[in-house]
Amino acid sequence: MLLSEMNKSELETFKAAETEKFNAFKSQGLKLNMSRGVHSTEQLDLSMPILEVLHSSADMMSEDGTDCRNYGNLTGISEAKRLFASLLGVKDTEIIIGGNSSLALMYDTVSRAFSHGVYGSVLPWGKLPKVKFLCPVPGYDRHFGICENFSIEMINIPMSAAGPDMDLVEKLVAEDDSIKGIWCVPLYSNPDGIIYSDETVKRFAALSPKASDFRIFWDNAYVVHHLTDKENSIPNIFDELRKNNKEDMIFEFASTSKITFPGAGVAVLGASENNIKQISDILKYQIISYDKLNQLRHVRYFGDLDGIRRQMLLHRAILEPKFNLVCETLEKELKPLGIIDFIKPEGGYFVSAFVPEGCAKGVVKICKEGGVTLTGAGATYPYGHDPKDSNIRIAPTFPPLDELGKALELFCIAVKLQSAEKLLKDNNFTIEGTDYRDDNIEDRF
Amino acid sequence: MLLSEMNKSELETFKAAETEKFNAFKSQGLKLNMSRGVHSTEQLDLSMPILEVLHSSADMMSEDGTDCRNYGNLTGISEAKRLFASLLGVKDTEIIIGGNSSLALMYDTVSRAFSHGVYGSVLPWGKLPKVKFLCPVPGYDRHFGICENFSIEMINIPMSAAGPDMDLVEKLVAEDDSIKGIWCVPLYSNPDGIIYSDETVKRFAALSPKASDFRIFWDNAYVVHHLTDKENSIPNIFDELRKNNKEDMIFEFASTSKITFPGAGVAVLGASENNIKQISDILKYQIISYDKLNQLRHVRYFGDLDGIRRQMLLHRAILEPKFNLVCETLEKELKPLGIIDFIKPEGGYFVSAFVPEGCAKGVVKICKEGGVTLTGAGATYPYGHDPKDSNIRIAPTFPPLDELGKALELFCIAVKLQSAEKLLKDNNFTIEGTDYRDDNIEDRF
Repeated sequence: MLLSEMNKSELETFKAAETEKFNAFKSQGLKLNMSRGVHSTEQLDLSMPILEVLHSSADMMSEDGTDCRNYGNLTGISEAKRLFASLLGVKDTEIIIGGNSSLALMYDTVSRAFSHGVYGSVLPWGKLPKVKFLCPVPGYDRHFGICENFSIEMINIPMSAAGPDMDLVEKLVAEDDSIKGIWCVPLYSNPDGIIYSDETVKRFAALSPKASDFRIFWDNAYVVHHLTDKENSIPNIFDELRKNNKEDMIFEFASTSKITFPGAGVAVLGASENNIKQISDILKYQIISYDKLNQLRHVRYFGDLDGIRRQMLLHRAILEPKFNLVCETLEKELKPLGIIDFIKPEGGYFVSAFVPEGCAKGVVKICKEGGVTLTGAGATYPYGHDPKDSNIRIAPTFPPLDELGKALELFCIAVKLQSAEKLLKDNNFTIEGTDYRDDNIEDRF
Repeated sequence: MLLSEMNKSELETFKAAETEKFNAFKSQGLKLNMSRGVHSTEQLDLSMPILEVLHSSADMMSEDGTDCRNYGNLTGISEAKRLFASLLGVKDTEIIIGGNSSLALMYDTVSRAFSHGVYGSVLPWGKLPKVKFLCPVPGYDRHFGICENFSIEMINIPMSAAGPDMDLVEKLVAEDDSIKGIWCVPLYSNPDGIIYSDETVKRFAALSPKASDFRIFWDNAYVVHHLTDKENSIPNIFDELRKNNKEDMIFEFASTSKITFPGAGVAVLGASENNIKQISDILKYQIISYDKLNQLRHVRYFGDLDGIRRQMLLHRAILEPKFNLVCETLEKELKPLGIIDFIKPEGGYFVSAFVPEGCAKGVVKICKEGGVTLTGAGATYPYGHDPKDSNIRIAPTFPPLDELGKALELFCIAVKLQSAEKLLKDNNFTIEGTDYRDDNIEDRF
């Protein structure tokens, strides 16, 4: 029975039963965390052999003879460029191998744009009266954080199952030259797990922005992070851009944070040679070289792209049951009541749950009281403001399976309680989620 | 006999003999590099055991229970803070442990000041019509590079054997609120190896700048980098600043680049709690955490400050003979001719040679032709402009001792040739160097 079809008395009985469950749960005094997409210990242990590949002085030399312990090679060692260029689908001359953080590469890219502009800028962005970014929502809070930090005005772009609303994106970038960028996680989007359609990617590659220095920030964070047998991919946007002579319009990012170690991986930036040159000419004032020993560790450990793919199968073996548990639990406990909308992701790190409008903050609060920390409600929207107070990002990777089960139990109680309360108070509610229903969702479960 | 006392015929004979030596040298087809202060392979090998300290999953935990492989700990793990705070002489709450590059920490600090200001700024520096920095000269080219990159106007400050000209520093900062910073390498200055006197440090700590957001950029790059038995030190500037309630006026930097690996060390930023908080509140948008595994490696390898000191003795054993060779060669070959001025450094990474005015560029060019790359003449001055074209930074650490001897042989030939040519052309020359002669230089040889 749908919760919305219950009468007052049924709702009160329902709520009382859930309250009792909540109290029983609370008395267990649990402390569980589902707030961020981090590795479990089991996943961290997968990459331990990477710490064993460098020993002798002879191991320290890159293929071009650079001693990786010393200074030098601003944009990275050549074997690391080759490996990660193959991951991004760019040329070896179109990549910079950074430190341990793709977030830092993104932040620094925006920061440089403010102090110096990007290739093709007339003025540094910091000299402009206003800079705006398009932000497909829900999205990644740390992307929005960079914008907030630089006082970039953020414009919400609705997501569909095919990616951002491209009609709106095309219209806005064509008419407003203060729009300088858009954040995209094109494969297994954060948090929805949406895979941009071929058409979406091609339309991105054909954008005709009014600003000559508009950039697509293509955060390919989950490029090999599959959760099922279906190893999804998207068209190589560089190839598409080149067809249109627009290859300067993109900055692509990725890292091994969720391949090896979140805290000690290697991050990369892919961009056209024009962009790489403009960046390098400034980067040389910031740093002499990133940590080349860690670059070497990664190359020696993986060998090639197949090595990375093999590693991802090991991650998947740990993660798939967790994502299955989340989706099965939500499906079983909440779907029949009509108080949840979500798609089961085929990759990435999150399940994006839409609870009834006006309920997300309440659900997160109840979970917190019960001992489970979730990502803050609203975090998936610019300025932390979810206009419908409906989206909750579930990050199931960190807790062991049994703890995850416990946490999900509480989550379901919280959604039921909050939804019942909302109905008792307002006598109606809606769940909109993203525009999933137009799609053949069944196909994706 | 001084070169300046030779008559024309003697000079011509002298020059002809040196030209012959140069041609003989050139025919050897050598390719040697004395351009940058980098580790020799022998030094790099000293730190190889640091790559062996992390093995098991249990090794990965910091003392506060953080798994260093995962995300977290924006400002560093607590045992790394304790170790490096003891190196800088600050509290554990007054330090941020960064990535592998102190240059990046400096650049980012200036970059943040431009985008956001520092603690106490009324406006971000980027919103001001003009920002100026004081630059003691000769100095470190990468400091000047950061200024150039942000269009900061640089004002030369002469150095004496006691440090920068503090009368001038005090006067300028008191009268001009667009002066926002000064670059200092207080112990074994780059390139001169000058040790700031106690009085200089105390006068820095008592500065009363007109700009409320003026900062001393205290690059303590060579804090434990002694080359003799005399382990020089300077007063702890944080203690001095605290006496004057001015502890917000400083950013201190250091790294293990010249302790472990230049390319894979750990860099640190020391500052007051007010500064650390202001920085962290912005830094959290830039990065989730720096590489904590490398922090852990360093702590486990060194244990404590004594461990670092022991490591520096091993470096010294390799470096001291090289510095001795440089100084003995210059002393023997060039001093009697009156065509060199320098002080023998007791620490740091360079010998700063002053050749006759107008000769530095020529000397570097001749060396290049002969197969030895030196740091570009002028590099030790803002905008690459040495007003007297006299200073050359000799970096003797990289080449093995026999190659260093060869390179010095050529260097001496080049100074002789260029000086003779200058005399033949102008019939006079001067060497001013820094204001060393007022001091008891002999004491320092």
